[in-house]
Amino acid sequence: MRKSLGARTALYPMPVLIIAAWDKDGVPNAMNAAWGGISEEKEISICISAEHKTTANILARGAFTVSMATADTVRECDYVGIISGNDIPDKLERCGFHTEPASKVDAPIISELPMALECKLKSYDPESCRLVGEIVDLSIDEKVLTDGKLDLSKLRPITYDGLGHGYYVLGERVGCAFSDGKKLV
Amino acid sequence: MRKSLGARTALYPMPVLIIAAWDKDGVPNAMNAAWGGISEEKEISICISAEHKTTANILARGAFTVSMATADTVRECDYVGIISGNDIPDKLERCGFHTEPASKVDAPIISELPMALECKLKSYDPESCRLVGEIVDLSIDEKVLTDGKLDLSKLRPITYDGLGHGYYVLGERVGCAFSDGKKLV
Repeated sequence: MRKSLGARTALYPMPVLIIAAWDKDGVPNAMNAAWGGISEEKEISICISAEHKTTANILARGAFTVSMATADTVRECDYVGIISGNDIPDKLERCGFHTEPASKVDAPIISELPMALECKLKSYDPESCRLVGEIVDLSIDEKVLTDGKLDLSKLRPITYDGLGHGYYVLGERVGCAFSDGKKLV
Repeated sequence: MRKSLGARTALYPMPVLIIAAWDKDGVPNAMNAAWGGISEEKEISICISAEHKTTANILARGAFTVSMATADTVRECDYVGIISGNDIPDKLERCGFHTEPASKVDAPIISELPMALECKLKSYDPESCRLVGEIVDLSIDEKVLTDGKLDLSKLRPITYDGLGHGYYVLGERVGCAFSDGKKLV
C-alpha cells in the first residue's frame, strides 16, 4: 500500500552545496544550499534567494565556487547555513574555515573542503531565485585523490535529508553504471 | 595542494531519478536521469533531451512521476537508463518493473520503487533540455515507513557517481541540520 504525503519538496539524495564568493572588498562569505544540481553540460543551477549575502557577492563579482560538504566538516557546513553573513561578516573565520583564491574564477575556495567547482555567473533571476553558473574548473585537494582520481571514501561527501533534517554520508558502492543494467538486456 | 581537473560536469551527491510517463496510448515508459534537483518550493527541474521516449510521453500527457532509485533495484534502474523505449517499447516489463496509476497525476508509478514525486508538467525547453514539474504529491510505500515517517534505512536511495560511473547507497547519519551548526555559534 502506498501512502500520499501531499505536495512535499523532497528528493533523495539532495546535495549539500557550499557556495562561496567574495564581496566587492574581498571579504569571503559562504552559504549552504540543497536545492540545486547539474542543469546541463558544464552548468550548475541552484535556488538561492536574493536576500543572502552570498547572492549579493556573486552579483558583484560575477563568480562563485561550489564545494561539496563533507562528513568531516558537517558542523561547519551546517553553521554557514544557519548564520547570515549580513549579520556576522566574519562567519567563515568564526567556524574555522579558511579561504584561498580559486585558480580560474574571481572567487574564494574554502581550503577545508576538498572538492570545488569553480563557476562563472551566467544568470540570476530574483523572482525564481535561480542562479546559473558555468563550470570552468573542478578543483580537488590531492589528499582525496588515489592514483590521480577522486576517491569518494576519502572525500566522504554528505547528503541533506529534507524530510528528516539530517545529514548522511555517502555509503558503499552498490553497482556500476552501464554494466549492471546490461545483464538484464 | 589542489589539483585542477578542468571543466568537469560532476557534483556529489547527484541523484538517480527514475522518470516515468505514459504515452498517448497508455503504454508506460521510464528513464534514468542524474542532472536534476529541486529548483523551487514544490518544483523539480531535470535536464532531459527531446529524443527520449519519456520526453515525448510527458509532452503528450502533461504529467510524470519521479521515483528515487534504490539499492535494491540498482540493476533495473540502470537498465532503464541504457535501453530506450524508442527501441524496446516493453522495456519496463522486460526488466521486471510493474506500474500502477499515480493518485494525483496522469502518469504511472513504478511499484517496485517505494518513493515517488507526482508531478504536473510546467514547462519544457528542447534547447536547454530543461524539464520543469510542479510537485503535487509525494507517494511512499508503507514498507519504507517507520511510525508513519520515511525511514531511509529501509528506502536505501542511491546516488550517481558521475566521475567513476558507479552507484552508491546512502550511508549513515552524520549530523542534524540546525543543531550541529548551533554548537559553533
